[in-house]
Amino acid sequence: DVGNNQNKDQSWSRSAAQEAELAASMDCSGHGRAYLDGIIIDGKPVCECNLCYSGPDCSNFSPDCPADANDGDPYYLEEFWKKHAASSAVMVSGWHRMSYSYSFSDQYCQISEELEKHIRKVHEVVGNAITDGKYIICGAGATQLLNAAVHALSSNNPSIFPTRVVATAPYYKVYQTQTEYFESNRYRFEGEASACMNGSDTTTNIIEFVTSPSNPEGQFKRPVLSGPNVKTIYDRAYYWPNFTPIPGPADEDLSIFTISKLTGHAGSRFGWALVKDKEVYERMTEYLNENTVGISKDTQLRMLKILKVVLEDGSKEMFGFAHRIMKNRWERLRDVLAHSDRFSLQQTPAQYCTFTHGVREPTPAYAWLKCEKEEDENCSDVLRSANIIGRKGDLFNADNHYVRLSLIRTEDDFDNLINRLHKMVNTKPRVLDKEKDHAR
Amino acid sequence: DVGNNQNKDQSWSRSAAQEAELAASMDCSGHGRAYLDGIIIDGKPVCECNLCYSGPDCSNFSPDCPADANDGDPYYLEEFWKKHAASSAVMVSGWHRMSYSYSFSDQYCQISEELEKHIRKVHEVVGNAITDGKYIICGAGATQLLNAAVHALSSNNPSIFPTRVVATAPYYKVYQTQTEYFESNRYRFEGEASACMNGSDTTTNIIEFVTSPSNPEGQFKRPVLSGPNVKTIYDRAYYWPNFTPIPGPADEDLSIFTISKLTGHAGSRFGWALVKDKEVYERMTEYLNENTVGISKDTQLRMLKILKVVLEDGSKEMFGFAHRIMKNRWERLRDVLAHSDRFSLQQTPAQYCTFTHGVREPTPAYAWLKCEKEEDENCSDVLRSANIIGRKGDLFNADNHYVRLSLIRTEDDFDNLINRLHKMVNTKPRVLDKEKDHAR
Repeated sequence: DVGNNQNKDQSWSRSAAQEAELAASMDCSGHGRAYLDGIIIDGKPVCECNLCYSGPDCSNFSPDCPADANDGDPYYLEEFWKKHAASSAVMVSGWHRMSYSYSFSDQYCQISEELEKHIRKVHEVVGNAITDGKYIICGAGATQLLNAAVHALSSNNPSIFPTRVVATAPYYKVYQTQTEYFESNRYRFEGEASACMNGSDTTTNIIEFVTSPSNPEGQFKRPVLSGPNVKTIYDRAYYWPNFTPIPGPADEDLSIFTISKLTGHAGSRFGWALVKDKEVYERMTEYLNENTVGISKDTQLRMLKILKVVLEDGSKEMFGFAHRIMKNRWERLRDVLAHSDRFSLQQTPAQYCTFTHGVREPTPAYAWLKCEKEEDENCSDVLRSANIIGRKGDLFNADNHYVRLSLIRTEDDFDNLINRLHKMVNTKPRVLDKEKDHAR
Repeated sequence: DVGNNQNKDQSWSRSAAQEAELAASMDCSGHGRAYLDGIIIDGKPVCECNLCYSGPDCSNFSPDCPADANDGDPYYLEEFWKKHAASSAVMVSGWHRMSYSYSFSDQYCQISEELEKHIRKVHEVVGNAITDGKYIICGAGATQLLNAAVHALSSNNPSIFPTRVVATAPYYKVYQTQTEYFESNRYRFEGEASACMNGSDTTTNIIEFVTSPSNPEGQFKRPVLSGPNVKTIYDRAYYWPNFTPIPGPADEDLSIFTISKLTGHAGSRFGWALVKDKEVYERMTEYLNENTVGISKDTQLRMLKILKVVLEDGSKEMFGFAHRIMKNRWERLRDVLAHSDRFSLQQTPAQYCTFTHGVREPTPAYAWLKCEKEEDENCSDVLRSANIIGRKGDLFNADNHYVRLSLIRTEDDFDNLINRLHKMVNTKPRVLDKEKDHAR
């Protein structure tokens, strides 16, 4: 009986609970938070303030501070997890899962059975991927799995080295930097997929990265290459109702997902791949074993709890919250740029969503802003002069008339971005009611 | 005030605490434990039993079950963490450290400042490494850091590719398998360090792995190579009072440590390197970023708490417990083999230990057992016929007259090993009082 156990045993967990409650109770003015492992002053963890805020309670705003819209740090869901504190907390005992393995009889069992079940369940409820007949392998974020997949899909036959790794611009730069960084005899990054299209060479193996929805544009993409010597790695990081309607379930040989964009827990370093072929799965597992001996069991415990919250109420709660945030940010962004000829945003058509049973517009994680004037050939500099930090086009192998703006950071970062864009385009934005859910 | 906060706020953490207490309260007869993320039956997590035990409460022993002494799964400290439940537990909130970084202003800040402080403190208290003037980089276990170090120390000048990676047998096989698995244009595993000794080639770069104390022997080792083109990676996984006297602090260009052998938390995948040279540190950091974008912040939070417990009472408590366990196991092992001509164990001389201020004998993590008979040329098979699973010599590039026996597994595994060795050598072991601390 839980009640009896509670009276008898709720002792060892008490001080850990108190410490966590203390950190959570620190007043940081809605512009920061104190962490359990932060610097301690006078017995209390200090507030860690959002960018542009400072002071012991984060109440000082620096008016000249730039609006940072550079990286995809997914703080946009922090408020959701604060609201769901009770169901998302997890108490880790000192003796939790000390082993290398989840199984005493199999030293290479690297994934929690319960976690795997919950991953399959989330895909089933959302309807964004078919997991039947697929293997699941976990990694330290999508990042580790991207290279594990390249390794696993490369030919190990030296006579046809190296496998060519390609993508279609604009693409996520890590495909290039990582593949080049770990360049082995077996594979080499070769840039644009289209360069491989008309070749008569059908013996060299090719791996094509396809991000769908894409980063930075947020659009559905298809591979441009096909054939018996072509393998595709689908990066499905953004294929969640947070960012896009779900037209139907992905059913691919190799798809990679990450918790970072789904729930915002980038710091946990957790991703997974769905893999159809047993041999590819085994080769990726070998990579994980040689690289890190699987991933942290502390992380897997926490991710299980987080996915349980995602699954509450048929998953309407978290995806509803995430979509409302993103929809509101897109409305504010479109509004502030509505009267500008100088800047344009990507077009993303509305589609039927099988998860929400209705047509809806995408709300991508990033704006792919274009400076329309010919002479604004470094759009990033144009924004920088207005004190806005974006990520320039050539970091996606694209034209520098484009800049990526991250829309998934803190509300403070987003507010700062909108204010600075507003100043720059010098029009008055329509006043929107911010969603109560994320108002501070 | 903590008390006030507690009354007001100890609400969101309650159900997580109750769940953990419930799992901890499951009766598994001292031969297993239930985990928070285990399979749930009738609302309760099931017991996960030690090898050779089964049943809902792990009370059924299988008499024919082999004694597993193969891998180094460090359950030997599980009992310690159960005894220190209150101080070692950690409550993770749903919004804990969602960012990629520990710092809003530096997107690549991958290590918790408090954790780094505590790592330096542990080394200072134990006296096993000088950390002043050294950089600290964290990895997913020593495993990730080994390859990060190889990458960082390899020349990036193609005219002198590849850097030769070597070690001295018997050595930890992962140096070879991992280096071969990730073989790039830049480095290649070439086996025995001694093969590089008499070469006149002083332009090719060489990386030598030195494990000290060594795995499998538990002896202090020195590099066999030196010179301007030689870099040494010191694997210091076993340089703790658990296993060895501490003659003095290591002060090396690159030393790698892991929590797995220090506190037994192998499942957390956490290790660190002390690095003298800034450029090497930066190159290892780049590796970590391209590979996994640093390591899990959930893990770092837990490791901070674990190191705080290690530091309690001048660190006498944990190191005392660990040493008593290992000493007891070595006494029982030596005792059972005392009257055998067929088997011998490695010699490890007593030394002065600056941590305990006295002379003491090493208590290595592994026995390096030798079958002394010429005809026992596969010692592993000899043990296998007595239902004992060890790791054969050639898995350390050594003679198969040797077998490594892991002494850091569960007490049940160790008891089974001793009983089977006893039967095999057919002598009656001296009865020792087992330490109360780890008696079950």
